Formats: sequence, structure tokens, C-alpha cells
Amino acid sequence: MKSIISYKKTNMGVNEVSSNSTGKIFKVTTFGSSHGVALGAVIDGCPAGLELTREDIQEELDKRRPGTSKITTVRDEKDQVEILSGLFNGKTDGTPIAAIVKNRDQRSKNYDNLINKPRPGHGDLCWYEKYLNYDYRGGGRGSGRVTIGHVIGGAVAKKLLERYSITTTAHVTQIYNIKTEKEYSLDKIKENIAKNNVRCADLEMAKKMEEEILKAKENGDSLGGIVEIIIDNLPIGLGQPIFDKMDGQLAKALMNIGAVKGVEIGLGFDSVMLKGSQMNDEFRMENGKITTKTNNAGGVLGGMTNGMPLVIRIAVKPTPSVSGIQNTVNLESGCDDTIDITGRHDPCICPRITTVAESACNMVIVDNMLSAGFIHPDNIDK
Amino acid sequence: MKSIISYKKTNMGVNEVSSNSTGKIFKVTTFGSSHGVALGAVIDGCPAGLELTREDIQEELDKRRPGTSKITTVRDEKDQVEILSGLFNGKTDGTPIAAIVKNRDQRSKNYDNLINKPRPGHGDLCWYEKYLNYDYRGGGRGSGRVTIGHVIGGAVAKKLLERYSITTTAHVTQIYNIKTEKEYSLDKIKENIAKNNVRCADLEMAKKMEEEILKAKENGDSLGGIVEIIIDNLPIGLGQPIFDKMDGQLAKALMNIGAVKGVEIGLGFDSVMLKGSQMNDEFRMENGKITTKTNNAGGVLGGMTNGMPLVIRIAVKPTPSVSGIQNTVNLESGCDDTIDITGRHDPCICPRITTVAESACNMVIVDNMLSAGFIHPDNIDK
Amino acid sequence: MKSIISYKKTNMGVNEVSSNSTGKIFKVTTFGSSHGVALGAVIDGCPAGLELTREDIQEELDKRRPGTSKITTVRDEKDQVEILSGLFNGKTDGTPIAAIVKNRDQRSKNYDNLINKPRPGHGDLCWYEKYLNYDYRGGGRGSGRVTIGHVIGGAVAKKLLERYSITTTAHVTQIYNIKTEKEYSLDKIKENIAKNNVRCADLEMAKKMEEEILKAKENGDSLGGIVEIIIDNLPIGLGQPIFDKMDGQLAKALMNIGAVKGVEIGLGFDSVMLKGSQMNDEFRMENGKITTKTNNAGGVLGGMTNGMPLVIRIAVKPTPSVSGIQNTVNLESGCDDTIDITGRHDPCICPRITTVAESACNMVIVDNMLSAGFIHPDNIDK
Amino acid sequence: MKSIISYKKTNMGVNEVSSNSTGKIFKVTTFGSSHGVALGAVIDGCPAGLELTREDIQEELDKRRPGTSKITTVRDEKDQVEILSGLFNGKTDGTPIAAIVKNRDQRSKNYDNLINKPRPGHGDLCWYEKYLNYDYRGGGRGSGRVTIGHVIGGAVAKKLLERYSITTTAHVTQIYNIKTEKEYSLDKIKENIAKNNVRCADLEMAKKMEEEILKAKENGDSLGGIVEIIIDNLPIGLGQPIFDKMDGQLAKALMNIGAVKGVEIGLGFDSVMLKGSQMNDEFRMENGKITTKTNNAGGVLGGMTNGMPLVIRIAVKPTPSVSGIQNTVNLESGCDDTIDITGRHDPCICPRITTVAESACNMVIVDNMLSAGFIHPDNIDK
Repeated sequence: MKSIISYKKTNMGVNEVSSNSTGKIFKVTTFGSSHGVALGAVIDGCPAGLELTREDIQEELDKRRPGTSKITTVRDEKDQVEILSGLFNGKTDGTPIAAIVKNRDQRSKNYDNLINKPRPGHGDLCWYEKYLNYDYRGGGRGSGRVTIGHVIGGAVAKKLLERYSITTTAHVTQIYNIKTEKEYSLDKIKENIAKNNVRCADLEMAKKMEEEILKAKENGDSLGGIVEIIIDNLPIGLGQPIFDKMDGQLAKALMNIGAVKGVEIGLGFDSVMLKGSQMNDEFRMENGKITTKTNNAGGVLGGMTNGMPLVIRIAVKPTPSVSGIQNTVNLESGCDDTIDITGRHDPCICPRITTVAESACNMVIVDNMLSAGFIHPDNIDK
Repeated sequence: MKSIISYKKTNMGVNEVSSNSTGKIFKVTTFGSSHGVALGAVIDGCPAGLELTREDIQEELDKRRPGTSKITTVRDEKDQVEILSGLFNGKTDGTPIAAIVKNRDQRSKNYDNLINKPRPGHGDLCWYEKYLNYDYRGGGRGSGRVTIGHVIGGAVAKKLLERYSITTTAHVTQIYNIKTEKEYSLDKIKENIAKNNVRCADLEMAKKMEEEILKAKENGDSLGGIVEIIIDNLPIGLGQPIFDKMDGQLAKALMNIGAVKGVEIGLGFDSVMLKGSQMNDEFRMENGKITTKTNNAGGVLGGMTNGMPLVIRIAVKPTPSVSGIQNTVNLESGCDDTIDITGRHDPCICPRITTVAESACNMVIVDNMLSAGFIHPDNIDK
Repeated sequence: MKSIISYKKTNMGVNEVSSNSTGKIFKVTTFGSSHGVALGAVIDGCPAGLELTREDIQEELDKRRPGTSKITTVRDEKDQVEILSGLFNGKTDGTPIAAIVKNRDQRSKNYDNLINKPRPGHGDLCWYEKYLNYDYRGGGRGSGRVTIGHVIGGAVAKKLLERYSITTTAHVTQIYNIKTEKEYSLDKIKENIAKNNVRCADLEMAKKMEEEILKAKENGDSLGGIVEIIIDNLPIGLGQPIFDKMDGQLAKALMNIGAVKGVEIGLGFDSVMLKGSQMNDEFRMENGKITTKTNNAGGVLGGMTNGMPLVIRIAVKPTPSVSGIQNTVNLESGCDDTIDITGRHDPCICPRITTVAESACNMVIVDNMLSAGFIHPDNIDK
Repeated sequence: MKSIISYKKTNMGVNEVSSNSTGKIFKVTTFGSSHGVALGAVIDGCPAGLELTREDIQEELDKRRPGTSKITTVRDEKDQVEILSGLFNGKTDGTPIAAIVKNRDQRSKNYDNLINKPRPGHGDLCWYEKYLNYDYRGGGRGSGRVTIGHVIGGAVAKKLLERYSITTTAHVTQIYNIKTEKEYSLDKIKENIAKNNVRCADLEMAKKMEEEILKAKENGDSLGGIVEIIIDNLPIGLGQPIFDKMDGQLAKALMNIGAVKGVEIGLGFDSVMLKGSQMNDEFRMENGKITTKTNNAGGVLGGMTNGMPLVIRIAVKPTPSVSGIQNTVNLESGCDDTIDITGRHDPCICPRITTVAESACNMVIVDNMLSAGFIHPDNIDK
């Protein structure tokens, strides 16, 4: 094994600047792994005076929870959240909010056959090289289960944004080769995605997507897709020019979600096919507000919000956990080997990723709202 | 005007957490604007012992410099860099490296007709809302000229990476509707892009692209395109899981470049059309090293480099500065108005953006190399 | 009340950059308050491979735990720690370590008479102004109980430093007007402080100090003192010149502990009475190592450790919770008022503060050891 | 030499998290060294709309400038500042303010006899161990000249604080064994310190201090002293509890100034001699404001300002550069050696350090004022 691993020459993973925190003012630190005692988050920087209950968080966790429909993994986790700190008389008191979810259905032995065999398409190998160990039990902290921390943070962010009528809506626009065909208003999107397991606004296509996912599930295979996120009612001027542009921040937050391979804003990659004279959104006055007729930019100019809906899309790769024999290497023998992943996995994580994507965006937006001074005590505490 | 601007209710831009710095260990702070005295960067965290001359930086600046070919803006800036600190006997001494470029060809009066009229597709309006002022002279700090700071930082990063044989190569793969058609080896790409103004590996297509750009220039219009960046010879394990994944960091760094509307890694958006069984890159032993046959992931798994070439693409929108009358609003009158942008502008910034994209990536890579302990005194100082 | 509180004009405590985290690489985030569900800490950046048990942390918590001798508060808290994440097979795995202590003996009703009456010498008033609320139950997060988080972080840091034979020893050198009179070797100090409740190296003086504390306790009064911290076996070069000098970092970490009113290093304030020719510690070779005969500097030169023992002292004010009627103001009526603090309090926190001071220093030292690359995988994981 | 230097085993100074920046919102990055091309600072986060001229900065630089009286070094530096960016039409525009001072009177050859011989009491040895090099010409970036960057940052901070009538006044209260004997009002202190070279409020003692300094200068020796800083008109609630207490932040900022060996707030080390019942500052209503009769706490409770004047003192050691033969070691031979420091040095830096201390405090205060939302556009831009 020594020959194939480079760690002897490095101190990797030892004095690394770790990155389990996100945000500059609304700072969320997450912890926990797939098969440890608990997962959770500490939210530092939530203003005092916000009414908050564990149900506010539980509601979001329930949306990403596995085992809720036949197109998700069968791992049965109730994911009950417990708030440990930060509340006083039912309101946030300005001190850190710690909340945890205990792991329950941890069938660790399912994973014993994976020891020393990094799964293709997963981060196991990289994790091993970096930390000189990896948790072969469902990926440890590399598991999708760590997004519980994201959702805890995002739920508190969402609660704050509600005061400002800012909504973040993630909906599936494509699964494999099945795309939504019609345009829907934001209200219609919100209404429709609650009606189907795929969280797609086009109810007809949603059915076809679900069928395709079930087919993949039967074959032990998996599918990817595209998720679009729309953030509405943003003020003008969120985001910092140069190294923390709003689109830069969101691109990072979304790319940081496992399985996301691409991010585009507004017309995104399609903007290449337009000329400047076609791409520009011209300004106009509308009811005393500056607005634009088109929204090719997707709500961001010069790295700052321009008051139009922020529209961003992500490409989600098919889940790498598929059935059947795959080629890999054995970290102990240093030889080629094969792996057969069993365990319980999602045939398509797009529906569940919508909640994670919303959470990731909401944390970014709240952080910028606070930074820009848009969130005031008078607005919060009533 | 009061009615259309919301700043009275906010303290935006006043106690904002500014973002003119990037990096955690290799920290680059930039300053300066399009029409001020000087632009520059301070690099804090560059290890001591690196041989560095002003020519190392100048060479990179020359690549992004305007006025070098007929397809760029005619603004004539020599962009001569001056190093103010951080060197001792020709080597870095571990203290901050400050370097500046003075502005020379600043025809500010060209911009007087833009006062109070935000340019469509530019950040003027957002800037105005945020800071209660904006520099109508070429966008001030919103100008593409600020990427001089990026390139200064990137040039020092590049010099460090050379010690480790890590190369970063950005090449244009598409301008408007003209795409490269063949696949080239990295060596061939490096060789070919130096031979044409567009920095495209396909020399035939490069000609067509150049023609198309000149046509747009004649029409006072502009074109966008796609730039691919390939980073070679990276060690395994760069990037921090969870909130600072390597793809997350790069997506942000690239999206932070003005005009970039999308980022994708590996197969990116095309990965949606594959099933998990097709998408996974299987591991295998090759000459005592772990490698993969395919590189669908684009060199990153679980947010960490996996030892394969890192391949990332960006969508660059057509430059918003186009000739002809455009609709806008007048910030003073609060009414609809029109604008006619003259001044000197690039019909297509893709060729020049390649150097900026390389710089952005190089700063990220060096930051992670340092964080992971890959850069040692013995390797630097010889 | 409105007339005396300024919050209407500010957004204080709303978009503040919160500070419940410390450290740049060894990052500790703490949460919880005196009368909430639990207190705890998340440690991000502890290298993988360190053997760690809950007993390692419990041992340190037991040292700061109340109710262990007649000179501490009678609040009876077992302070049992529970580790929620970050361990795999008995070793740290490089992911965040979350650990919590549940509150048990919370007699909240003891504090009802304090509502709206800020306690003199405490932060209640400031807290109220900042967050528009304060937890009158024992100070909430302003309570000394929050140092449980410091001690959790410090215990893990201590465990890491043991691998490098670095020890941090805090001992009481003065209580009120009673001072230690003799000089002791570090070994003797370590031995003696374990033998008495005051944690004083001079066993005779320790007795007198204890008597004086008990006398104050009987009178419902309180005493302060001086604590000296000695950090041994440090390498040369820890600390970053300019804005993160080693003495600057330690001064902050120690001043951040409630009740600390002064910090001095080496000769500290006494250095004023020497001339430069007397103050300088001359260098000399001793057994192949550079050393100094005197240690007036206290182990730090130019903001970096110089290889000599680091000696730093803190002034601890008498606990502000004293019996008897005190003048205060009523936040509701806006009038003068009086307060009579009952509840359970320490007559002198110096003995318990020693563990907190050691923890604060250990977190700083580990952070700098990691930053400087002194901590290697080979040294940790055996 | 190899035997006495440990760097071979470490990567110190290579992947260190550098610290040439300070502040979280009002972020100041400094660069430059004693004998390089220029020194300077970049201020990121200064709100837009502040009237600022180079004279505002020059005035402060002139106060710390050497060569202004017979009790300072004779190095003749005009220290003329040049602003490179961040201003538009005479006001700050919200973008980074870069300002530089070029070095002129650099008699580098004066220092050639210091090569390989670390000066006692200076950071040379530590610097060498950390960066594998040190600039023997006046200490390089370890020189007191780097405080030019502090003063640039502090001057801009001071200009902002003037809008809020917040003043920071540093005055010398002790030089060697000569102490001020009387108490003066803040107004009197401000008036008197401008009248003498020592910046002491007690004019009689100032004379004696000056004589003592001149005596030390004649003997080639140096003196230390105590400087008190008073910050007036602060709002209640500045500072973040737990890890960024106001006293913690200030202690660090002041300890980060070379030669400072101790910091105390309010009664500081003398608080040890009081009992809790004596130490507490009781609250009372005075003209509709909450205030305290005594100010033993020095303006900070629970880590937050309480509205009383903030009073903090620093112990300044005698300058280590003294004439005459001193023992040191030779880094090349690894043997004992001697050193004779000539060059031009201050016999007592206390008078000049007052401006640096004010600057350090002002940067901290502005940073917290911004963070707490006290600085509004309406207040800045008139």
C-alpha cells in the first residue's frame, strides 16, 4: 500500500484550514457523520428576537428526510432535531443556536465489505489520502447525511427571510433526458412541487420522471438531473464586488453540495449564443421601481443583486452508488480489485437535494442581508 | 430620485464585510479602479525563499493587457508593474508582496455622458444603490481593469506552482456559435493557443472566431464564449470537504470574474444525460499510481482532487458595452432615459479572460497546496 | 425605560460579526448558557489520528467544576461530557469534534428578583443594550459557566501538545494581599498546586489564602488575585509578526476570560523600572542550543517565541457577585433602584480560573503549532 | 549552524496563516519594511462618503515621524504619504484605500556588522528561525517603521470617529522611575501633551522625563515607560462577548505593538487589592443616562463597553537597541559571539508610541462601531 499513497511526504489533513463553517455574519458550523452518534449545527450570528421553535427546523428536515417515498433510500431515519441553546422565552437571544439530530438506523455492518476499497465516483480515496483514514461506513462525513447540518442552518435562515417576504424555491426541471416543457409562474411552481415526489412544477413530466427513477432503481442504477432555484423579493445591492460576488457566493454554496457538477445563473451557458445587444437587460421604470423587461442576467449584475428574481440552476450527477461489480483498487494490497456496493441508496437525489439547495442559498442570502444592514431589530422582534 | 432608490432605509455599503481579499493562507488583497491613480495587490502568505522578479509578473500582465491585437480594446495601457515590498536579495522574504500598476491612458471625459445613467448589463445601478455613488468613468472598481490585481496575485502563484510542475491552461473552446471540433492533447493546446489572438487550440476555428469577433466589432456589438481551464499534475486530496470543496472554491473564483455566467466541472451539465453506471470513473492501478480511465468527474471527487487533470469550463457572456442607443433610467430624474455608450471596449473578452481565469485558479490552487502542507522550504529555496 | 436605552437608533447585536469561535486552524466554536439545555463546543481542525477519550476531556472539566471544595460555589454540577462526533475507532478522524455538557442543577427561580436590575460589575446592562434582552438567570451566556466550552477545546489541545512535551501550568501567585514569597521550579509548582485547593505553589501561603477566601465568603464578599501561566518546551518561531504576535494572541485569549483586568508577559509592568542594558536577555550557546541566561522577555521576542519558557500573568478582579444591598438602576422604570444578589457564587474564582487559563493558552499554542507546521502525522498517529 | 537551527524539521513560515491584516469589517492590511522601497496599508471596509485628504493621514504620520525632537532617533524620514486608490471627488467611495510612504534615508550599510548576529531583545533570531532569513537592515519588517501602516489605518479610523465625537488620547504617565503625580481632566491632558516632547500631561514631570531620556541617550542606554489611553464618548455595547471582548481585542492590538509587555484596563493589576464590594461600580441614573460614580472597570463589563470612558494602560519596555558590546550567538558558526549595535535609535519610544497606540485603538473601535451598526450613511456623508 505504501507505494500508492503519497502521505509520507506530506502533512496533509494535519494543519489544513478546515472548512466546516460557512458564512461571515450568519456563521453555521456543522459536525457529525453518517454513522456517528449525532449530526448537527451551531448557528452563530442569528440576530436576537426571532421567534423560533424546533418545529421550524423539523419541517425542513422532514423535506430532506429519507424514506418518505418510494423513490428515496429505504434507510429509515426520523431525523428528530433537538435544540440545545440559543433560545430564551421562545425567541433567539443572540447567542449561538446549537441543534442536533441523533443517528438511529445505522446498519454499519452493511459496509464491512467496502474496507480498503474506495467506491468509484465517491470521495473515499481522496478522503483516505488526506486524513490517512476514511469512514467506510456510508462515507462517514462524506455522506449526503451531513447535509442535515445545512438544512438546520437553512431552516433558521428561512425563518428570518420570511420577515422580509424573501422566498427561495428549488424545483426539478430535468431528470435524465426528461425535461419540463412549459413555463410556470413562481406561485404555480410553489404549488405544484408540493404535489409530487419529484418536486417538479410540470405535473405530467413529474409522473414520467418518477417512472424513470423507479426503472433505474429496479436496475440498480441511478439518474441525475437539473434543479432550478428562484429567489424572490431580494433588495438591490446584495453581494460584494470583486471576491464575494453574489453569484460567486451562490456558485460555491451550491457546488459544495455533493453531486453538483455545474452551476449557471440567468441564461448561463446559453448566453454564449446571444450577442451583447441581445443579452443586455434594459432598465425601465415600473411603478416607481427600477426594473428590467428581460431577466437574462438572472438577477445579478456586477456581482450584486439588481432587484430582479435571482435564477440559478445546478447540474446534479447521477448518484455514484450503483449496484453491480465495479472496478476499483485495494488500498492495502495496492492492486486492482472489484467492489459490489449494496447498502441503501437513492436512485436519484434530485428531489431531496432541492431542500439542501434552498438551505444553501438561504444561508448565503441571510448572511448578505445581515452584512448589508437590511435586517433590523424592529423588523425581527414583534 | 428618492422614490426609486431604497438606501434611505438601509445602511448598505456602510458596515458591509468587504471582499477585496481572497485566500486563507495565500491571501491576496487588491485595490484600485479604472480611472484612479493606480491598481495593485498585496500578497500576504507567500512563502519565503521564492525567486521572484518584476518580469515574472509583467509577463502575465502583458497577456491580459489591452491593445495588443485588433480584437481587443484600443485603450493603450502599458501596465508596467512595480514591486514595493516583500523581496530581499531577489527572493521573497515571507513578508507581504505589494505591487502596483499606475493608470496612464485615462480619458475620463469620454464618460461624462454616462452620469446618472446606469449602463444595461453593467453593475452601475447595483453599485450606486450599495455605495450611494458609482464611478461612471469606465465602471470605476467595477471595471475589468481591476483584474490587474488578480493577475498580479496569479503570477506569483504560478511561479510557486512551477516548482511542483503544476500548470494551468485556459483556452477558448467556443466563441458565439463557433466551436472547436477536435480534441487536443494538453501539450498541443499549450502550443497552439500561443499562435493565435483568440487563444484557441483549434487553429482553423481560431481564424473563424477572429473573423466573427471583428464582424461584431464593426457592428458595435459583442460576443461571448466558453473557456476551458485544465490544471495538470495536482496531488490527491486538495480541497476541504463540506464548505470549501475544491470545485466549490474554483466555481466561486471563476464566477467572481465579471461576465462569467456559468461554471461546470468535468462533464458538467452533460453528466445529467448519463446514468450512474456510465458516469462513475472506475479506479485502476497504472504504473504504481491510482488513476481512472475516464475523467467524467473532471479531477474532483467529494470536493477533493483525485489526481486526474482538473477540467473546468466557464460561460462568458458577451461584453455588455455595445454601441447604439439603449434604454435605461435616469437616477436623478427617476424617469426612463436612453444611453449611448461610446468609449473603448473589447468586442469579445474571452481571449483576455483566459489569463484572468488562469490567475484565479492558480491563487486557489496555491492556497490549497499551502494549506495541505505540500509546499515545503526544501522545495522552494534552492 | 425607553429614555435610557439607545437601541432604537441602532441595529446593534443584529448584524454584528459574532465571536463564539476562536482559532484559525484549530477552530473552537462554543455554545450554551448558564441555564439552557446544554453547553458545548465544536472543535474543527484537530488533526486526524489523535487518540482521544471522553475521560481526557472529563479530567479537565473536573478541575474547573464547581462544588469540589469549600472555597467554590455550592452549585452542584457533575458536568459530564458527551462526545457526539469526530472519533472513529478511538481516534480523531479529522472531522469536527462536538462535545456537550448538559445543565442539571439550574435553580432558575433564584434569579427572579434580578429581572430588570443589572448587577454591578457584571455585563448584564451591556448585554441588554446589545441584544435587547439578557438572561437574568445567572448571566445566561455571560456566566462563567460558558468556560466549559473553553475547557473542552483546551482539553483536546492539551492532548495534542502532550505529544510534543509542551506543558501549560497555571498557578496562583497572589490572592488579595497575600503573595507567594519563594521561587519554585516548574516541576515543584506542578507538584504543589495539586496539593491544595487554591492551586498555589507555596503551600504555606496557600493555607493563608484559603483562610482569607473563607473569611470573605463568610462576609458575603469576594477576593481577586494573580495567576501566572508557564508554557514549557515551545519551539522557536511560534506567532506571526505584526497583527498576530504570540503575546498579542495570548493577551487576547486571557483578557477574554471574564474577570481578567490585566495581562503581562515576562517582567511585564516591572520592565519599566529597568534600562535597556538591563532588560535585554543576552543570547548564548548552551548544549548546542541557543538560550538566554535571564528570561526578562518571558519567552517572546518580536512577537514570536524564542525557545525560553513563556511566562505570562493575569490580574483577576474579585468576583462581582457579592451579598448585600447594592445600588443599580431599573431598566423598566428608568429610575435608581437597589439589588440584593443571593444565588450561589464563588468567593474567589482564581483557583478555578487556572484551568480556564490553561485551556485558553493551550488552544492558542496548538493553533500556532499547526499553523507553523510543527504537528506532523508521524508524530500524532502511533 | 545546522546544529543550532531547527528549520530542517519544519515547514515553518511556509504555510503559516500570515497576519498582516487586522479587523473584520474595517480591515487594514499593511506591507513594507525598514529598508525596502515603500511601506503602506490597504484599508478595506471604510464606508463610502467620508471626506478624506492625504493631509488627514499626513498629520498623524507626522506625530510618529522620527527626527522631530532631540529625544528621538536622528534617522531623517519625511514620511510623505501618497493615496493610490479609494477616493472619488474627495470622498471615500467604498473601495479599498491604498496609501504608501516611500523610504528615503536608508543607510543600509550601517547594518552590515549585524549579519548572522541576532540582536538581544529583538526578534531577529525568531524571524530567522521562522522564515529562514531575516533582514538585518534595521530589522526589516520587524522594525518599528512598520507602524507607519498602523498609523495610516488609524488616521482613517480617527477621521470616521470624529463624526461621532469619539476621541482617543494616549499620554505618557511614567518614564523609567518618574511618574505623573496629579490627576488631570481629559481636556487638560489633551491640551498639555501637545506642549511637550514626551506627551505627558504633567508638564513639570515632563521636563524631568525629558532630562532622564537625554541622560540615557548620552549613555547609549534606553528607557521604558507607561502609556495610558483614554477613549471617550463610546456607546454602550461595543465588543462581542466570549472570544472578541472589547478588552480582549484592545489587549491584543496593543500587545501587538513592539516593546509592549503588559496591558491593563481600569484598575488593572491594582484591582487585586480590592474586595468585590469595593471594586464594583454601582449604577445610577444621571441626566437620563445610566452611569457609574467610579470607573474601576475602565469602561468595559462582560467584554462590552458600558458607556464610561475606556481607560487602558500599557507597559513599554526600554528599547533593546543600546550601545556597547553585548553577548549574542553567531548563526553561521554556531558559537558565542558579541555584537556592537550602532545605527540610529530612539533612547525612549514612549512619546512616539502614543500615536501608534491611538491608531491601534482607533482601528479596533471603528471596526466594532461598524460591526454594531453605529455608523450610518446619514452620519457620514454630509
